[in-house]
Amino acid sequence: MQGQIPFGVADYFWEEALQRQELIADLLATFRAWGYGDVMPPAFEYAASLSAQASAGLQAEMYRFLDRDGSTLALRPEFTTPVARLVGTRLHDWPMPQRFCYGGSVFRYVDPQAGRQREFWQAGVELFGAPSPDADAEVLALTAEAMAVTGLADYRIVLGQMRYFGGLLAALDLTPPQTEALHWAIERKSEPALADFLRETPLRTGQRQAVEALPGLSGDPSTGSGHRDIQRVIDQAERHCLNTEMHRALVNLREIVDALAGYGVLGYVVLDLTEIRSLGYYTGISFEALAPQSGFSIGSGGRYDDLVAHFGPAQPAVGVALGVDRLLLARQRQAGATVTPQPVRPHALVITNRNPAAIAQVQGWRTEGYRLQVEVNGRGLSDVLAHAVQIGVGQVLAWEEGRFVAYRANADGLFAPSQGEISFDE
Amino acid sequence: MQGQIPFGVADYFWEEALQRQELIADLLATFRAWGYGDVMPPAFEYAASLSAQASAGLQAEMYRFLDRDGSTLALRPEFTTPVARLVGTRLHDWPMPQRFCYGGSVFRYVDPQAGRQREFWQAGVELFGAPSPDADAEVLALTAEAMAVTGLADYRIVLGQMRYFGGLLAALDLTPPQTEALHWAIERKSEPALADFLRETPLRTGQRQAVEALPGLSGDPSTGSGHRDIQRVIDQAERHCLNTEMHRALVNLREIVDALAGYGVLGYVVLDLTEIRSLGYYTGISFEALAPQSGFSIGSGGRYDDLVAHFGPAQPAVGVALGVDRLLLARQRQAGATVTPQPVRPHALVITNRNPAAIAQVQGWRTEGYRLQVEVNGRGLSDVLAHAVQIGVGQVLAWEEGRFVAYRANADGLFAPSQGEISFDE
Repeated sequence: MQGQIPFGVADYFWEEALQRQELIADLLATFRAWGYGDVMPPAFEYAASLSAQASAGLQAEMYRFLDRDGSTLALRPEFTTPVARLVGTRLHDWPMPQRFCYGGSVFRYVDPQAGRQREFWQAGVELFGAPSPDADAEVLALTAEAMAVTGLADYRIVLGQMRYFGGLLAALDLTPPQTEALHWAIERKSEPALADFLRETPLRTGQRQAVEALPGLSGDPSTGSGHRDIQRVIDQAERHCLNTEMHRALVNLREIVDALAGYGVLGYVVLDLTEIRSLGYYTGISFEALAPQSGFSIGSGGRYDDLVAHFGPAQPAVGVALGVDRLLLARQRQAGATVTPQPVRPHALVITNRNPAAIAQVQGWRTEGYRLQVEVNGRGLSDVLAHAVQIGVGQVLAWEEGRFVAYRANADGLFAPSQGEISFDE
Repeated sequence: MQGQIPFGVADYFWEEALQRQELIADLLATFRAWGYGDVMPPAFEYAASLSAQASAGLQAEMYRFLDRDGSTLALRPEFTTPVARLVGTRLHDWPMPQRFCYGGSVFRYVDPQAGRQREFWQAGVELFGAPSPDADAEVLALTAEAMAVTGLADYRIVLGQMRYFGGLLAALDLTPPQTEALHWAIERKSEPALADFLRETPLRTGQRQAVEALPGLSGDPSTGSGHRDIQRVIDQAERHCLNTEMHRALVNLREIVDALAGYGVLGYVVLDLTEIRSLGYYTGISFEALAPQSGFSIGSGGRYDDLVAHFGPAQPAVGVALGVDRLLLARQRQAGATVTPQPVRPHALVITNRNPAAIAQVQGWRTEGYRLQVEVNGRGLSDVLAHAVQIGVGQVLAWEEGRFVAYRANADGLFAPSQGEISFDE
């Protein structure tokens, strides 16, 4: 008997599928209200395009296959590169800034874990042609708004700035192995590795102090966050600037924080100058949205001013991609809900007896948004009532002598004809 | 410079992407109101599963690729088989009937034509566990409702019943080549081919008359359609029944027409007993939705009682798949609209000067559904007004001395401060 599906992909159905579709729709509606326009790139395209700035890790995770003309295609592993390609190749002559939003599935060959599948859903935005801190702030504020739309009571946005560490590296004038050692130590937040680096690397006093200060340049996601904590980190970082690049990174952050203050979301932001995981791809801020209890990432983004130039005239760009599956999981955990999978219940089962007036009334209720299932197997009232009990529906409407009679379940689950106007429980 | 995309796939953006997303959302909302629950099968799965009852043509069009464990995967070429697999393998113990709806893209290696891409979007429903004519009628009525939701002023549903022709074949007792010749002639509606068949095949009088009558057993999509025309075709077909199978097909059609009458959509239905293209897959009714002016198919469906048994306990089933791209194209042609691609315009551009009160007001308007783009490049009023002219936006809101001043374009396209309450054009 056939019927297995491959490891790492899933069928979503019932409440789980509805929630997924509704969340994507809600996020897109929010993005549109902020002036972002829908974009739907293809599910597959040339692997070379998708690889433009993809990390070695992402490249290894791409699903590649041959087109019949022999070219190598790949399923999109994310949306940013296809949208950057579109802007670079076809839309570069249109006025900037340009705002795009998307929602759909992406594909990566990963080891499946909780909330991590090989096909998973992303929703996000890309803002092109705006190099300013206000653009960074808008994307950060919109990320916060997306959390609110999702219904997440608590979350953190951990904000980094690649150019501070990039400037430090330039100021230290290290050999490639030394650079790698420092990068590794900071990226893993490993104190022993940092101690090794400091012991083995000859540095001047100011250089040494700047490196030693690095691990302290992050807020505390659990307690301290918000405007004051951010200022503290920036002030501390300022004391160790070795060149204008490091200084500029902090000026940029101050500007972003200033622009962001008006949105009232700084309480969720934690500054972390040791966040350097995507150095090379991101050219300014980078950030990650986290669900505090579960600790997993529910989205990430940043400024990527070098990507569009792979496809056309260069354009500054900043964006965010949210993991729809992760958002749903985080919301579910925060609500403490234990979900028992079951079909989405209709508001009522209906026996129309094929009567046009009955059908017309059903159609009217459907237009008002009520979910009504019409009996199609010719069962009589008692069988339909039994079916209602079985699937947990509390109302059956039966067309009798030219009008609907509503049978509603009482507290004991027994159905009885109900008096008065027909109404539906929400 | 990179940036091409493969032949047969497309980037959708601006108004075109928005309309596509909105139509899918509207169709899903309609399906849900009829008691159908969302289902989201994976974009790829084992090719063997997807091939369960796929025609040779569809099998040849499937995008196959190897998983890293060596198994053969394929991108879904349609939704019906994955949903049937889900019901057969995991949901067979749940009460029937079960109703599912979906909206998403499917993949077929076809020669691209107008409105025919290698990735295209489908929305549809599947109704399992209901063998009755009322189930067929519900899916037909829901197809009509989907046309109304799309905004199509005119369309036709061409309805066939596989079992009439199937019964005829059984009654004729033909050799395989003869069967093939008759099938070919009827499928292509070729009178010369039918004449050849009749000349070359020894038949008794009743058999001959039944075959000769076949081409006449269809309504006229352009003029005659509706209840009376359908009855005429059924009455005519009745005179040539050679066995109970043919008779039962007509009884079933009469029942479906009776059940469908209450929905008030029979005026769009054309009966065609020569519609046999998917014989072998469909086991009862089959139908195609057409846009009259353009003549192209915008959806198809039918009863497929044999598919679920490939994956689990047998279940009767009926469903429809609508081509979202075709629906959009048909609507556009019926509206006679010539679409000039351009970005979806925001209701206004806004200068907030990072003021919290200004931002709060913008957020409120966004919640009401207005699309507002905030100036993020630090441009002043005159530059933002120039940008508004450039992208065709008729209103700019600037925060001045603690309140928003609205600058609205007059008939000459010149912006002037507007008096009174701020409002937005729909």
